[in-house]
Amino acid sequence: MSTQDLSREQRVDQLYSRIHELLDRGETRKAQIIIEALLPADQAEIFRDLPDDEQLQILQGLPLEETADILEKLEDEEVAEIAGLLPPEQLANILDEMEPDEAADLLGDLPAEDAVRILGLMETQEEISPLLLHADETAGGLMTSEYLALGQNMWAERALEAIRQWAPEHEYLYYFVVDKEGHLVGVASLLQIIKASPKAELQSFMDRNRISATVDADQEACAQLMSWYDLTALPVVDDNQHLVGVITIDDIVDVLEDEATEDIQRLGGAAPLDKPYLRTSTWEVTRSRVGWLLLLFITGLITTSVMEHFEGVLKSVVALSIYVPLLIGTGGNAGSQTIATIIRALSVNEIDRKDALRVLWHEIRVGILMGLIVAIAGFLRAWIGEGDPLMGLTIGTAIGLIVFWSTSVGSLLPLIASLLGVDPTLVSGPLMSTVVDATGLFIYLTVAQWILSI
Amino acid sequence: MSTQDLSREQRVDQLYSRIHELLDRGETRKAQIIIEALLPADQAEIFRDLPDDEQLQILQGLPLEETADILEKLEDEEVAEIAGLLPPEQLANILDEMEPDEAADLLGDLPAEDAVRILGLMETQEEISPLLLHADETAGGLMTSEYLALGQNMWAERALEAIRQWAPEHEYLYYFVVDKEGHLVGVASLLQIIKASPKAELQSFMDRNRISATVDADQEACAQLMSWYDLTALPVVDDNQHLVGVITIDDIVDVLEDEATEDIQRLGGAAPLDKPYLRTSTWEVTRSRVGWLLLLFITGLITTSVMEHFEGVLKSVVALSIYVPLLIGTGGNAGSQTIATIIRALSVNEIDRKDALRVLWHEIRVGILMGLIVAIAGFLRAWIGEGDPLMGLTIGTAIGLIVFWSTSVGSLLPLIASLLGVDPTLVSGPLMSTVVDATGLFIYLTVAQWILSI
Repeated sequence: MSTQDLSREQRVDQLYSRIHELLDRGETRKAQIIIEALLPADQAEIFRDLPDDEQLQILQGLPLEETADILEKLEDEEVAEIAGLLPPEQLANILDEMEPDEAADLLGDLPAEDAVRILGLMETQEEISPLLLHADETAGGLMTSEYLALGQNMWAERALEAIRQWAPEHEYLYYFVVDKEGHLVGVASLLQIIKASPKAELQSFMDRNRISATVDADQEACAQLMSWYDLTALPVVDDNQHLVGVITIDDIVDVLEDEATEDIQRLGGAAPLDKPYLRTSTWEVTRSRVGWLLLLFITGLITTSVMEHFEGVLKSVVALSIYVPLLIGTGGNAGSQTIATIIRALSVNEIDRKDALRVLWHEIRVGILMGLIVAIAGFLRAWIGEGDPLMGLTIGTAIGLIVFWSTSVGSLLPLIASLLGVDPTLVSGPLMSTVVDATGLFIYLTVAQWILSI
Repeated sequence: MSTQDLSREQRVDQLYSRIHELLDRGETRKAQIIIEALLPADQAEIFRDLPDDEQLQILQGLPLEETADILEKLEDEEVAEIAGLLPPEQLANILDEMEPDEAADLLGDLPAEDAVRILGLMETQEEISPLLLHADETAGGLMTSEYLALGQNMWAERALEAIRQWAPEHEYLYYFVVDKEGHLVGVASLLQIIKASPKAELQSFMDRNRISATVDADQEACAQLMSWYDLTALPVVDDNQHLVGVITIDDIVDVLEDEATEDIQRLGGAAPLDKPYLRTSTWEVTRSRVGWLLLLFITGLITTSVMEHFEGVLKSVVALSIYVPLLIGTGGNAGSQTIATIIRALSVNEIDRKDALRVLWHEIRVGILMGLIVAIAGFLRAWIGEGDPLMGLTIGTAIGLIVFWSTSVGSLLPLIASLLGVDPTLVSGPLMSTVVDATGLFIYLTVAQWILSI
């Protein structure tokens, strides 16, 4: 970043201390003046770290638009918390200043009764209500109703006049064009409109090649569509192709970040956190993880049963137990490698369910190759370590089979989950380890029984 | 997606078959006509799956701009492959039609001699050369030199005229304003320019609040800056604040997806793949994983040493080995949960290195709580399973300590990596498992020695 940006974090930290100090001394007005001079994103960063009472101090007397800007930049849960502290009238006024899609999101996070009461107090009620009907993570939940639809028979100069008079908070590069019944028929850029001859009808120069999403489309699918076609705005239509809203690129950037966070946290076997990490309490973090950890503990008991089943084998050759951690560890690693590749290929749509057999076949070949390589390493280690070629053969064969098996399982698990309509990241990571641990032990000790003829 | 989009994949698949058939029969012109009728993104999707010879068939006779559009949508490695097949003159002509940043990327992927020769044949040589100086993953590598800088003393009507006459491939919503020396001084939107009175100077209404990146800034940092401030274009400046390029939002969307893919693949312990999954050969996939798997195998040998160290203990109480997979598995799971949370918090900048102690303290408390809960479960299982309260105490104590320990290690490893300037995802996932396995075994068997006084 440039010099002023490199130190953005320090600058924000410094401002935070200063504002905190002023509020502490009761000099609210001075603190507000500093806040007002900042960009919304920085305002939000400082604001979110202030104690509850100081947040309220700031909000009293801050212009409504400023408050709306700050709340728009905060995480959903943080906003819901602050909203709970404000008198309903003030909250309604702030919501009126927010972008419709953000206001609808916030209302959706409040207890139903509160949401209804506050909606009743709002001026933009009619604009917001339809947005409340859609689930948060769909195109309908993501879109804004603040858009300007232009008629296809409009002259360029009239369209330009309409755009000039319409003063949205966000500026748009593209404007969507509809027919008399409100069906989406095309798109025109501001530059096209400026360049067109004043009396040209929009339909004479607009672009007809339309990509759109229906209101119930998944937000991740919308993100991919926009990313693939390089769109900065995606029109949302109902089942009859009527234009009902627009998704803008800044919302999609947030969706992509959130979805990647969810994927990564789920792969690690923890429920995604709704709040920034340092704002979540010990108990909230524990709650997001402990259920899954206990579930895995219970499934992990299968390994204990497998070990008990082979207790005789383990007793007669104690050296076998020495290799247990190495063998199941290696199996887990091979499985993780595969699963990470497959999950990501699934989530960026490089592959889908119908490719299951091709993927399995790909991974079977990879598994055989990797299994052979690791088998040689295992054979050498155990032969030298135990001074017994039969032990070498046991460990080598077992580790080779385990790597082959984990690679194949690692490719199938996410695809099966996706077929069953379950999020592949959920059943991958730690669940895969447990499956691979138990089956790997079974493979290992069966091989040992054969080769060492116990 | 709307009906036409829901079936986009099938539609593309169908078109692919049709085009493949036509090319096979030598009806190249017909295939080209179909290709030309599609959007660039769809053209690229069909094109990338065609065999090499059919790709060349298509490219011969396709207008240069169409070819440029297709190549821009493909992955870097795919383009480099195709570029290698084309005569240098044709390639130079195609590159002239591409966006400067994409053309520079492509040249950067070619062997140095070829790149120099082709650059010499290009008309846009002067525009591209400066872009070649910057590393691919920096602001300089990401920016385009195709931008229009407006002078601060320009009248609104003159600026509008300049914008009208400038016909870039991409349309821009914001235009950056510079002083006489070319220093970045502000930004004006197209709408602001339209609305301003014709003789108003840009500096009288432009926005002075400037966020910019220097040419050597990391691309991920640029993505975060744009996401945080909701920018659709980010100006890039040199060390003297001269405007040298612009990064557009569509590039950032790609960066975010690529970075998340890299994170996820590294967490799984595989080197990121450069090509779409199904296009990589068995050998390429194996190569991306086998080195890491062998390295982990070698570090995993520490577990074998720990087990050998305690061979006496394991021999005298064989039941102890039965719990080995469960204990190290649970430790690994607790560690993965923590690491996933921390890695993601680091990569979306919720925390940074200076928060290391706060994070550790947070995770220590979480670890104690989780350790206690799992200890109770372990105690009950082993007491009931072995009919011996001392075994219950051993397993319960060991598993509690292991969970506490793995949680703490899981929070520290990524932070230490980040302090050392290593990518935290690299040392996390599988490496963490190995560390936790070895130390976990040591904790377990030491606890057993004490409690069972072996």
